[in-house]
Amino acid sequence: MHFFNVLLNFQIIFTKKTIVLSVYKKEFIAYLEQKVEVKEPKNLYEPIKYILSLEGKKIRPILTLLAADTFGGDYKKALDAALAVEVFHNFTLIHDDIMDAAPLRRGHVTVHEKWNTNIGILSGDAMLIQAYQYLEGYDAHTFKRLIKLLSKTALEVCEGQQMDVDFEDRNDVSIDEYITMITFKTSVLIAAALKMGAIVANVDDVEAAKIYEFGLNLGLAFQLQDDYLDVFGNPETFGKQIGGDIIENKKTFLYLTALKNTTQKEKELLEKLYSNKLNENQEKIEKVKSLFVTSLAADKTIKLINKYTQKAFEILETISTTTDKRQVLKDFGDTLMKRDV
Amino acid sequence: MHFFNVLLNFQIIFTKKTIVLSVYKKEFIAYLEQKVEVKEPKNLYEPIKYILSLEGKKIRPILTLLAADTFGGDYKKALDAALAVEVFHNFTLIHDDIMDAAPLRRGHVTVHEKWNTNIGILSGDAMLIQAYQYLEGYDAHTFKRLIKLLSKTALEVCEGQQMDVDFEDRNDVSIDEYITMITFKTSVLIAAALKMGAIVANVDDVEAAKIYEFGLNLGLAFQLQDDYLDVFGNPETFGKQIGGDIIENKKTFLYLTALKNTTQKEKELLEKLYSNKLNENQEKIEKVKSLFVTSLAADKTIKLINKYTQKAFEILETISTTTDKRQVLKDFGDTLMKRDV
Repeated sequence: MHFFNVLLNFQIIFTKKTIVLSVYKKEFIAYLEQKVEVKEPKNLYEPIKYILSLEGKKIRPILTLLAADTFGGDYKKALDAALAVEVFHNFTLIHDDIMDAAPLRRGHVTVHEKWNTNIGILSGDAMLIQAYQYLEGYDAHTFKRLIKLLSKTALEVCEGQQMDVDFEDRNDVSIDEYITMITFKTSVLIAAALKMGAIVANVDDVEAAKIYEFGLNLGLAFQLQDDYLDVFGNPETFGKQIGGDIIENKKTFLYLTALKNTTQKEKELLEKLYSNKLNENQEKIEKVKSLFVTSLAADKTIKLINKYTQKAFEILETISTTTDKRQVLKDFGDTLMKRDV
Repeated sequence: MHFFNVLLNFQIIFTKKTIVLSVYKKEFIAYLEQKVEVKEPKNLYEPIKYILSLEGKKIRPILTLLAADTFGGDYKKALDAALAVEVFHNFTLIHDDIMDAAPLRRGHVTVHEKWNTNIGILSGDAMLIQAYQYLEGYDAHTFKRLIKLLSKTALEVCEGQQMDVDFEDRNDVSIDEYITMITFKTSVLIAAALKMGAIVANVDDVEAAKIYEFGLNLGLAFQLQDDYLDVFGNPETFGKQIGGDIIENKKTFLYLTALKNTTQKEKELLEKLYSNKLNENQEKIEKVKSLFVTSLAADKTIKLINKYTQKAFEILETISTTTDKRQVLKDFGDTLMKRDV
């Protein structure tokens, strides 16, 4: 998930909107710092404070506040929902980092490395529970709507993560399955973050479903673009190593589309290139990149990104709000498409 | 947690009540089997079905059904709450087994051994989420009461587990800390299982708090008795290896009380015996056992068990229900005290 860079561009391009978002961010961080306490046992609560204090763009909670405002609600009332979303997201990061044996997160040592795996498991569990607890301040009706959405989303994120793990050992992953996987692993939480803000603003199910669909499509467009930039991005602006997915033999939309749309000979070459992990990858990256272009997988990816973005915009037009407020969400979506590719 | 054996004795002594409980159990298992499905991705849902299908006495869900009946509610309406409690409990088993590197659970291979650690982490996460989801059928008011209780309990269980882990590396654990640890790790879920049944029966906070306190005290009495039986129990009826806690150098109430109430020389001997893990333990067990007796730690443990049981009974007398229904809970408590020591 690299939604973070988006905000960066967003801030450069839309100065007026940046002020709104930076107010949201500042206020959210102040709220988080006030609410997240280190209690006893310290080995349970210190890792929680640690991961939540790591610098991040806090995109998901900002989306929650933004959505509450979109529907005429008081964004301050959405702070607890935003906190639930952020704490839930960080729970997934701790457990995912254990599963991936990742040493670093946002440039800092991961929880299971700084403490140990057992503490990572247990602190993550506690954060999942706390995400539910942060919603307890809402009235019973709003509470139930929020909790049902949180549970549905959380289970889907687990399913997405399991699919991602399963795909590593499979050679028959379909494009549909890949889209389902990134939908669950990434998009549903973006969508839910927006919908939670809508629920706090007491919006009916129809409008709430629209902003959810907006988030889902935008999340898909974004994740696909992230896959694209991982191969074809500008190393100076993309913010991480180009070709990382190729090095890791990740079965992305690019890879699956290339396999499906190329000659038998090139298909075999691509599968061979993806059959093991190397120490020296530059040649592999160049060859795979070339196959992604000649198979038209690169073009097809751009088309799909445009399709999802377009769909998100169409849904946005149907949302009942003021032109001004709709524009904030529209700008946000536009920026997604204007990333330096 | 060895609440299981209790039911066994219970069934031998109170035949009439056994019928009631076995009806609850049978109906609960049928409900569980109907509700717990293996969906895709199978690697996420098969481990859940697996652990929930392992034979167990299902004490916690039975307590939920029993409590609903105690307060004049329809126990069938408590089936979802009972399922939430059971699924939550089994989530803790999967994650605890990973942390303890346990190969077996209820005589069967543990989830992380049968699949792998990552699948254990993720399936456990999914079960915690499902525990919340099983409560979605209740009206918003009942839902909020149940969810708040589930979250509070779940976080306390995490805290108890972390304390237990922390105690392994500490030599200054106080008796109060030990009681807090077993309260959180064991008793709160027994108490919450009962209270959830009460909430489904739409009981007010005062009555619900009483049955919670009853469960808390009974749970403490039971856990302390379990510690006692682990050392002084009858190997033929206790159901597990006598001296297991001594072999593992577990800082139980017996151990902490012995340390506090013995001569400096015996204290040093006890600490030395607990300083490492051996291959041959019979001599160690006998020596520690003897120190537990001479220091009067054994006597003090029995006194504390009686104190908590007595307190549970006193609370029971104040619960607003019929004499008959109160008697079922009383019999249950009585049986706890009548285990073969």
